[in-house]
Amino acid sequence: MKESILFWPVRLKGNTLYILDETLIPKRIVTIKVKNYKQAIRAVVDMKTRAFGQFLTVCYTFVLELKKTTLTSKEEQMALLKKIALAFNSSRPTFPFEEVTSMMLGFAQKVYMSTNFKEDFIKMIDGFLEKGIRQKRYDRACQAALLLKDGDVVLTHCHVSGEMSLIGEFCSLQKKRVKFFATETRPYFQGSRLTAWELKKSGLDVTLVPDNAVAKLMSDGDVTCVIVGSDRSAENGDFANKIGTYQIALLAKHFQIPFYVLAQPSKKLISGRDIPIEIREDDEILTFEGKRLSPRGAVAFYPGFDVVENNLVTQHINVDAN
Amino acid sequence: MKESILFWPVRLKGNTLYILDETLIPKRIVTIKVKNYKQAIRAVVDMKTRAFGQFLTVCYTFVLELKKTTLTSKEEQMALLKKIALAFNSSRPTFPFEEVTSMMLGFAQKVYMSTNFKEDFIKMIDGFLEKGIRQKRYDRACQAALLLKDGDVVLTHCHVSGEMSLIGEFCSLQKKRVKFFATETRPYFQGSRLTAWELKKSGLDVTLVPDNAVAKLMSDGDVTCVIVGSDRSAENGDFANKIGTYQIALLAKHFQIPFYVLAQPSKKLISGRDIPIEIREDDEILTFEGKRLSPRGAVAFYPGFDVVENNLVTQHINVDAN
Repeated sequence: MKESILFWPVRLKGNTLYILDETLIPKRIVTIKVKNYKQAIRAVVDMKTRAFGQFLTVCYTFVLELKKTTLTSKEEQMALLKKIALAFNSSRPTFPFEEVTSMMLGFAQKVYMSTNFKEDFIKMIDGFLEKGIRQKRYDRACQAALLLKDGDVVLTHCHVSGEMSLIGEFCSLQKKRVKFFATETRPYFQGSRLTAWELKKSGLDVTLVPDNAVAKLMSDGDVTCVIVGSDRSAENGDFANKIGTYQIALLAKHFQIPFYVLAQPSKKLISGRDIPIEIREDDEILTFEGKRLSPRGAVAFYPGFDVVENNLVTQHINVDAN
Repeated sequence: MKESILFWPVRLKGNTLYILDETLIPKRIVTIKVKNYKQAIRAVVDMKTRAFGQFLTVCYTFVLELKKTTLTSKEEQMALLKKIALAFNSSRPTFPFEEVTSMMLGFAQKVYMSTNFKEDFIKMIDGFLEKGIRQKRYDRACQAALLLKDGDVVLTHCHVSGEMSLIGEFCSLQKKRVKFFATETRPYFQGSRLTAWELKKSGLDVTLVPDNAVAKLMSDGDVTCVIVGSDRSAENGDFANKIGTYQIALLAKHFQIPFYVLAQPSKKLISGRDIPIEIREDDEILTFEGKRLSPRGAVAFYPGFDVVENNLVTQHINVDAN
């Protein structure tokens, strides 16, 4: 099965982390070479990588820093990992950095008593990512495909890091023809730049629509289900995702269209009310590629995410729960 | 009361029609000089002018062509007016060109028997626009302001040709402080370029938001009512407006927020189902200012308008009905 580079957008080779610059796609495929955790955090804050890419960036940065450190004592190495964790935790608010860094520190704790602490930690993360995470994402895509019927038309919003084209490919293997509508996803245009690019590259049928066209599409019967990703989940099934997901969920409910979410189960937060919402800079709305869209001095409000209540979700697609 | 140039974006001076190029605002204020009906239709099709500007363009083009014609017989002059009407009628589908051109031809018919047909027609249109239309738009803005309370926060979508700042100014006169949220209104960014510009120029408090943020704003209690315009109305109160209006109306209903429309009463169409919806070119979604947003060969679907059902409207603001 062909895997989009967006499915695994961050890779570690030697002592360099290669982060795919998602802001340049589809124009150019450029990887940012990252040598330390500060550069990694810069890539996250500038949204060069996002969603699943952020997860990989955190994991690999722990490995990278441990690989290249000249610190010899385990105490100092552990202190370094804790410093990196704190730095990621305060980088962006909505994505659960604290959960990922805690998991990494937990892994470190597990092998702390080993005589080959450093090597064992690196091996452990590698196994966790390759066998655990990669496998789970394939399983989740397959499970999503099982929910679809021949002839279904899937509306998606933002970008689910290479998983939507896998869903399409699993559907093909299951002899089901499905089509996709991708919203543009203002203001970062993840739909136009990433989702459309990825689905098209995989030979799937995808049509871009303005975010404003969702109700019309649904009302005209042009969409048979919605599948979106989740940037952060709460224990009760509420989840946060790219701004606009909430209104798509409300519209899907109104038009009685199934609404599925590729979920990441978590028990750290009780409900969606506990998910902090990042407010991004005005300029991301007021300008586009350096050009001003609106008058000088204009004020904008750009919450990066919104929260979808559990009761709007037809089914959480969540391999851990099975 | 200060009138935005967007309130009356088309003017006739001598034998030239000056059409404000709304696509260049807020960067530059440029008027397109139009000498004949073909150039006027080009400006309409290219969306250099839109909404109320289209209405003015039709009216003034009839006057312009009649002023400059060398045809001396009334029969020939009338045939010219009919030719212009047909050309406008087939320019863009959703805006009711046919209603406006029929009205113009009706005026011509009324003064056809006069010995000064040409002069009387020109005078009649002038009176109709200045005393009839301009006065009605002021009345409608005042009526909208009367619906607002001190402290209200109005969400608007797209651009209502200078009427929103008048509403704000009427509120100030009525000693009510109101604030505005304007959606960006992809893909043409009428919200970012026109509404924010106009409201800011009038000293009003306006904040731009992504079209995707509507449900979040409403759910957070940040918006107390919605006011939008209407590109075309049907007899039963359904109306068509810029794509995205329908989902805002559905969300307003869900969150029990009053939804008002600046209406244009018409009895030509029975319901919203009879309103033809213009499908615009792919490229308006796939590129921005000549730059590609999405991969080469990507497909897009961009319906320019959607239809809001009467039952979603709290009140039609319609001076004719009073």
